[in-house]
Amino acid sequence: TELPVDRYGRVDPADVEAAITARTVLISVMTANNEVGTLQPVREIADIARRHGIPFHTDAVQAAGAMDLHVDHLGVDLLSLSAHKFYGPKGVGILYVRRGTPLIPTQTGGPHEGQRRAGTENVPGIVGAAAALRLAEERRAEEVPRLQALRDRLIEGILEAVPGAELTGHPTERLPHNASFVIPGVEADALLAALDLRGIGAASGSACTSGSVEPSHVLLAMGVPPEKAVGSLRLTLGRSNTPEEVAYVLEVVPEVVERLRKVVLAG
Amino acid sequence: TELPVDRYGRVDPADVEAAITARTVLISVMTANNEVGTLQPVREIADIARRHGIPFHTDAVQAAGAMDLHVDHLGVDLLSLSAHKFYGPKGVGILYVRRGTPLIPTQTGGPHEGQRRAGTENVPGIVGAAAALRLAEERRAEEVPRLQALRDRLIEGILEAVPGAELTGHPTERLPHNASFVIPGVEADALLAALDLRGIGAASGSACTSGSVEPSHVLLAMGVPPEKAVGSLRLTLGRSNTPEEVAYVLEVVPEVVERLRKVVLAG
Repeated sequence: TELPVDRYGRVDPADVEAAITARTVLISVMTANNEVGTLQPVREIADIARRHGIPFHTDAVQAAGAMDLHVDHLGVDLLSLSAHKFYGPKGVGILYVRRGTPLIPTQTGGPHEGQRRAGTENVPGIVGAAAALRLAEERRAEEVPRLQALRDRLIEGILEAVPGAELTGHPTERLPHNASFVIPGVEADALLAALDLRGIGAASGSACTSGSVEPSHVLLAMGVPPEKAVGSLRLTLGRSNTPEEVAYVLEVVPEVVERLRKVVLAG
Repeated sequence: TELPVDRYGRVDPADVEAAITARTVLISVMTANNEVGTLQPVREIADIARRHGIPFHTDAVQAAGAMDLHVDHLGVDLLSLSAHKFYGPKGVGILYVRRGTPLIPTQTGGPHEGQRRAGTENVPGIVGAAAALRLAEERRAEEVPRLQALRDRLIEGILEAVPGAELTGHPTERLPHNASFVIPGVEADALLAALDLRGIGAASGSACTSGSVEPSHVLLAMGVPPEKAVGSLRLTLGRSNTPEEVAYVLEVVPEVVERLRKVVLAG
């Protein structure tokens, strides 16, 4: 069963509870959405899952280093992470499995990793992932408020300087480093290309489906009309970003949008 | 359908052809056995598969750097390799897929790797695997005869100096770096522990199932009786091994076997 989301991209815990049947073997909700940064009510859903005795998984890939992911605080049985999202190596992830959670391996063969995943382990990746996660956690208390301040400046600046721009995702319950918008009158591909030429790495929809011209399924699920969703812009901040860079983005984006809109009108 | 092997661990191509039914969608045979080093008649089986229009896969993990694996020479549609077997990084492999071979991904999600395997790619692993394979291929012409000579000395020396020892696997159609035996009157675990104390890294059965006391399923399939199969010894040579090391092994193994046999008799 796939559940709907509200206009901020949040799943309603009451919908989760109502969707449980005798055949429900797993509930899975992402911790935070990768496109619009909205945080899901993980703890509330975890409590429902536990009450019904159903294993609960959260995809915390976007949230690593950005919020408290203690599995007991979240109340989850399974939690997945991807190392490159917290400055670790590409191609390695982490699956937390609470003791006693039933798990059928998807990769079978040898008895590696306690029969949970066959195959010779990616030792350098595993060591790198663990080291990167430790660093991300150590820096989190300091890094999160810094990112939030930069993000808030970015959101305010874009909403102020780009006529018609709207924030997508939840206004407060969102990742500290995600600023996402829809900008009417521009197409995301053209916008990204123009920003890239000015040295700004931005995204539209999710990076996984870039290259496709389909409007983001996330925005559509949130009720954003397709003609608006094609003008999506996602600005994600990271460890190396500075206030000067944010100021530069706030100078460039409005200019570029204005120019692109003129091209469209001229065309 | 799982096919039998002969006393050398070889699959008979005629058995493969006889086992084909209207429901056969794949034929898979390892290029060389990981325990006893026996080479399979891959080319003959490939010809049969092609004649019947059935995709043919070979697991060439043990054979990388040790023999010609040109996919057109082998006649295969699919070929798998594991980087750590040719001095590349752990945790990354290569699957060759001939153009037009139907393939259902086992890992789905994003459209990575041409929809063949979802997930952010292990870039350092992939680069390392490619570099290691290039080096292994460059060195192959020189390395294979060197390993063969060391292996032959090892086989002759053990058979000569260890009473009752028998070579397992094919006497000539075998990997250039594999010397495997059964040694009556000793248990593999005790033998490996004693060799380890003398600085010799050996194996029994396959490394993937080490820690288990079961006799090797490979040796059992070859018709080796269980009481003999528990005394298996596998010595594998590699890039760093020297003639001096082979001489040392030939000095130590007979001593250790003799001592262990006395312990057994005393017990």
